Amino acid sequence: MSEVAAVVMPAPGRALETRRFASPKAKPGGAVLETIASEVCGTDVHLHHGRLSGVPFPIIPGHVNCGRVLETGGPLADVEGHPILAGTIVTFFDVFGTCGSCWQCLVAKSATRCPHRRVYGITTSAVEGLLGGWSELIEILPGVRMLPLPEGIQPEDFMGGGCGLPTGFHAVERGGIALGDTVVVQGSGPVGLNAAIFAQLAGALDVYVVGAPKARLEAARRLGAADVLDIAQVPDPANRVRWVCERTGGRGADVVFEASGNPAAVAEGLEMLRDAGRYVVVGQYTDAGDIAINPHRHINRRHATILGCWGYEFTHLHRALQLMARHNTRFRWRELITREYALKDAGQALEDMERLAVVKALIRP
Amino acid sequence: MSEVAAVVMPAPGRALETRRFASPKAKPGGAVLETIASEVCGTDVHLHHGRLSGVPFPIIPGHVNCGRVLETGGPLADVEGHPILAGTIVTFFDVFGTCGSCWQCLVAKSATRCPHRRVYGITTSAVEGLLGGWSELIEILPGVRMLPLPEGIQPEDFMGGGCGLPTGFHAVERGGIALGDTVVVQGSGPVGLNAAIFAQLAGALDVYVVGAPKARLEAARRLGAADVLDIAQVPDPANRVRWVCERTGGRGADVVFEASGNPAAVAEGLEMLRDAGRYVVVGQYTDAGDIAINPHRHINRRHATILGCWGYEFTHLHRALQLMARHNTRFRWRELITREYALKDAGQALEDMERLAVVKALIRP
Amino acid sequence: MSEVAAVVMPAPGRALETRRFASPKAKPGGAVLETIASEVCGTDVHLHHGRLSGVPFPIIPGHVNCGRVLETGGPLADVEGHPILAGTIVTFFDVFGTCGSCWQCLVAKSATRCPHRRVYGITTSAVEGLLGGWSELIEILPGVRMLPLPEGIQPEDFMGGGCGLPTGFHAVERGGIALGDTVVVQGSGPVGLNAAIFAQLAGALDVYVVGAPKARLEAARRLGAADVLDIAQVPDPANRVRWVCERTGGRGADVVFEASGNPAAVAEGLEMLRDAGRYVVVGQYTDAGDIAINPHRHINRRHATILGCWGYEFTHLHRALQLMARHNTRFRWRELITREYALKDAGQALEDMERLAVVKALIRP
Amino acid sequence: MSEVAAVVMPAPGRALETRRFASPKAKPGGAVLETIASEVCGTDVHLHHGRLSGVPFPIIPGHVNCGRVLETGGPLADVEGHPILAGTIVTFFDVFGTCGSCWQCLVAKSATRCPHRRVYGITTSAVEGLLGGWSELIEILPGVRMLPLPEGIQPEDFMGGGCGLPTGFHAVERGGIALGDTVVVQGSGPVGLNAAIFAQLAGALDVYVVGAPKARLEAARRLGAADVLDIAQVPDPANRVRWVCERTGGRGADVVFEASGNPAAVAEGLEMLRDAGRYVVVGQYTDAGDIAINPHRHINRRHATILGCWGYEFTHLHRALQLMARHNTRFRWRELITREYALKDAGQALEDMERLAVVKALIRP
Repeated sequence: MSEVAAVVMPAPGRALETRRFASPKAKPGGAVLETIASEVCGTDVHLHHGRLSGVPFPIIPGHVNCGRVLETGGPLADVEGHPILAGTIVTFFDVFGTCGSCWQCLVAKSATRCPHRRVYGITTSAVEGLLGGWSELIEILPGVRMLPLPEGIQPEDFMGGGCGLPTGFHAVERGGIALGDTVVVQGSGPVGLNAAIFAQLAGALDVYVVGAPKARLEAARRLGAADVLDIAQVPDPANRVRWVCERTGGRGADVVFEASGNPAAVAEGLEMLRDAGRYVVVGQYTDAGDIAINPHRHINRRHATILGCWGYEFTHLHRALQLMARHNTRFRWRELITREYALKDAGQALEDMERLAVVKALIRP
Repeated sequence: MSEVAAVVMPAPGRALETRRFASPKAKPGGAVLETIASEVCGTDVHLHHGRLSGVPFPIIPGHVNCGRVLETGGPLADVEGHPILAGTIVTFFDVFGTCGSCWQCLVAKSATRCPHRRVYGITTSAVEGLLGGWSELIEILPGVRMLPLPEGIQPEDFMGGGCGLPTGFHAVERGGIALGDTVVVQGSGPVGLNAAIFAQLAGALDVYVVGAPKARLEAARRLGAADVLDIAQVPDPANRVRWVCERTGGRGADVVFEASGNPAAVAEGLEMLRDAGRYVVVGQYTDAGDIAINPHRHINRRHATILGCWGYEFTHLHRALQLMARHNTRFRWRELITREYALKDAGQALEDMERLAVVKALIRP
Repeated sequence: MSEVAAVVMPAPGRALETRRFASPKAKPGGAVLETIASEVCGTDVHLHHGRLSGVPFPIIPGHVNCGRVLETGGPLADVEGHPILAGTIVTFFDVFGTCGSCWQCLVAKSATRCPHRRVYGITTSAVEGLLGGWSELIEILPGVRMLPLPEGIQPEDFMGGGCGLPTGFHAVERGGIALGDTVVVQGSGPVGLNAAIFAQLAGALDVYVVGAPKARLEAARRLGAADVLDIAQVPDPANRVRWVCERTGGRGADVVFEASGNPAAVAEGLEMLRDAGRYVVVGQYTDAGDIAINPHRHINRRHATILGCWGYEFTHLHRALQLMARHNTRFRWRELITREYALKDAGQALEDMERLAVVKALIRP
Repeated sequence: MSEVAAVVMPAPGRALETRRFASPKAKPGGAVLETIASEVCGTDVHLHHGRLSGVPFPIIPGHVNCGRVLETGGPLADVEGHPILAGTIVTFFDVFGTCGSCWQCLVAKSATRCPHRRVYGITTSAVEGLLGGWSELIEILPGVRMLPLPEGIQPEDFMGGGCGLPTGFHAVERGGIALGDTVVVQGSGPVGLNAAIFAQLAGALDVYVVGAPKARLEAARRLGAADVLDIAQVPDPANRVRWVCERTGGRGADVVFEASGNPAAVAEGLEMLRDAGRYVVVGQYTDAGDIAINPHRHINRRHATILGCWGYEFTHLHRALQLMARHNTRFRWRELITREYALKDAGQALEDMERLAVVKALIRP
């Protein structure tokens, strides 16, 4: 390929454009991928509305991707030490640049809060190269970690999980599910659905999903939710809290995951939590405003543990992928993909995602 | 004593009364104490304003107390198995009735949230007997656990800690101080000061106290605070947050304790917290209203851990008392006692406590 | 029933006897059960050989049991507050007498190490009454906690799990399985098989079982083990360690459970563990002797975490039973029952258990 | 300096030699230090006896050091972002090369078990350059992390702690001291003494030290040990266990640290541990042989948690140094230095260390 087509988001609110780039060459320790699929996630919608700060527009969106290795800049290996060769089907950990030498990395060991951390398709500029998945080719910079898809996993399976896969995994790890815990998930988008999956795999007795619209709740049921609640049908939060209490001996759930992105969900979810339970906030990836809570009732007297959950680390992606390989016949992630779009239809994909017309949408360059 | 004087709080908002009761007799497994001192705590002020629900007025206030054993209903022992005899100077764990057979006790192991849990001087009625410390005698019911004061500890030392001692201990345990953590305490009342003490004992590098008034901040300094901030002098929360950041490499503190009772402190304190830090809410013992927080900035992106902390357990009181015996020359808890009141002046004690004219106030029957 | 038959173990090494007892009457807060089934576990074999200290012979063996409530001494409820009535099919938590007031209970919160803890069928004497399951009736003392079998669970299902159910549950909780961990279980008896079940439910990627004889390993395969190793076929421990390394990228397993009862398994199992892994010792319920380990290689350099696991608590039994109700079609615990014995054949049951001729053996009075 | 003198250990068992090297030049991102002091630690004795595998002889010993920056290869900063300039007095984290991309680093997050990890003065060859402290100059390779000594800390203070400082810190972190825990430390060398210090700082009620010889136990007393036991005076381990039980209500200690290097200490120390206590093995840095333990009594029935502790990470050194700056007047680490040696007397230093004639020995080039 001498020229490569890629979709560029030039600036917040401006229409997407398909531009042509020179074909990249693998740097030493890096690689070039032929894109098989890229995802459209909620963050892409937020990016387009300019809701994230520090984005170096113009950008090529698409942070979680699957591709075929075209060439590598010297011998490369995966985390187990197995070689990654031209032709291998891989995804890659979209986060890079974590410095390993700042206070957050070395002292706090909070790698997701390293100030040097960057993310493909979000904090990479199109000026730097093909560092986003809405493109025919993707450049893998040196140090970016590729993961070959495990045996039995097709690109569609992995992309059905998408960025919700490691995000949901991380949220469940952070929540610390105990064997037999009853769990509520607020939000039925990709993060919520993957949290529901991993909560089951981590030993939950029952997982309840509170969300909308209907298609996503049906997916939740298929994925093993003990019951689902459609917030469009039950608009009063007090009734939704009552619904949870009726299913939890009147006590509330042991663990509740907020995966909705709606600030109001936080106060509602804390009411769904039993005394001394754990509440994970994983859905508030952009600033959607303030919300009133009651420190006495929601936190202190409840003896609650509230856990913010930002980003994910390599281990979450690696282990999520291994578990997918074991449980793909049970969860069939690929069925979460509602629709696929060509590069030229990326704008339509953003629109469909915004009005929740799709569970998971793919870009197929 | 054939008749016993005790202060009764007849109902919210009504003046305190001194009433006379028949002298109690120790029940089998119980005891009777001659009161040496009882405390006046913030909760007593809230009780008098009717801010707690489920209080069986009329009550005899005074939940943390010190006394001399007058008689026991048969042989009694402390947790180490040493006998408790007439004449022993003791305090007792004011919480009783925790059932040991409900879901909270058995499955969640959240003893402080057992629905059968009762507290001397708060959820005990004067109709039931002398179950509060603002009284010449206190009846120790069977099953209530007494703790002899360790060698070298006088009643004044223990009462200088008061209920803030085990509450502060519990908060620090919940916060999980790591060796070398930098800590901020919001609130300079007895809970905040004891949290500052135990945070130091648990390995904090530096403890900063944000509070008022001046006398309490001077106590904080004497107790080892690296620096203190008077909120009366710095009324703008943004400046207080800046003050913390200047002392923490611009990052915020590793652990922040909210021990102020002011709901607004929660949003302010979360801004004082470093990414991936821990925030303990221990000061919101009554419902003082809602507060606006930002789920994205305060919780999710901050990867924060927020820990509500309700009540305390026997182990907290037991271990706090042992540590007091080791560190009394360093912290001199008794100096926190600003003033002592006779039974007849209990109303004055409540008033002084309410306007923060005292750090710690004692009732001396 | 005016007279009740029960099997008595008069003393170590002496033949079992069937004796007749007066029919018990439910004490206030207690109950009487008509026995449906009792189990024969490895501990019963050890009891008969006199390998446990402090056993008040003569005893009626049978610590984990299922029965139908004949009568109750007043209204009783389960941990959720639902009434337990005559006719209800229940099991009960065989541990009782935990004092709730000693240092272990109150300060260390290590309830399984309370010195006052007693166990039906093990530390109860036949002189005290029908406090073991190898009897037509069982007396439930006041304070002993009964658990109604959940909907869909028959006595045979529960007894197929037996005491291995909560023991395996506790071991897995103690091991702290992380999502995607690779697990090895040493020992394929009831504890090992239940540990293999709960390790899967807790999120293990793969569970490998190392044990014998063949019938038990076939059960392990049916229960989902990724692979099994027959120690009779591979007698050299070094080859068994190699077998594990080949399945774990050469690193060893993330978590290893010792559930064999053989002291030599401990040194072998530590070699099967990856650096910084967790090793749970749950199988050494009696003193079967010393074993040589190398503190440098097995513990220090390996940065290993080794976790002894003693007994179980109510919560383990409660939650294990709830999970059984969800996963009974997947694991079919009842199929672990190899053989059932009448009271008069209890001696034969002990013999069969000792030579591992059965996986799980029941007594059916 | 055009030529630099350094002590070389040519091979196990061979006499030390002073050799001359060409003066190094700082690589980009690296630096050159003028050595102020280097330590002689137990590991150096083991190295000389050939007890460690994988050592690339000839080596320049001396892994923990203090020096003055002579030159830097471009601008350098410490973990807080402050510049490190020529003239700054620093120590440095002796571990380097941790890859950040292997399974241990990325998935297990067990950085001290990364196979690429290297240590100055131990796994660095003299052929590679001045990568050990027994030398007039030390080359700081790019990526090696320097730490300026905090205000008020002199090189002698830091070197009095030496490698025992971060090792003891790590051990205490791993042990997870709870407020009010009673602690036993086995071993009174630099690791044991620093563990005793940090156990106190982390909230221990009392720390007991069991060791030898007398001079080290006197140091332990000065550093705050509640009591010490001289194993030369009490040669029977059963009596030493009894001594601990007498000081712990007959129960044993909450946490025991093995910092002796003697394998036999492990079985003895487990007997000193209370039920459900934590036992940290930090002293077994070389393979000094096997030891018999009883899995039933020492681990299973005791419900013990045994924690191997290997190496240390940057955060341990960083935080230990900060705490030293706060507590130097209390612990006066520099007084642990018994003797200082010139480069030419390094052989004598090894001999003195081996026969425990010194607590802490320094090399002063």
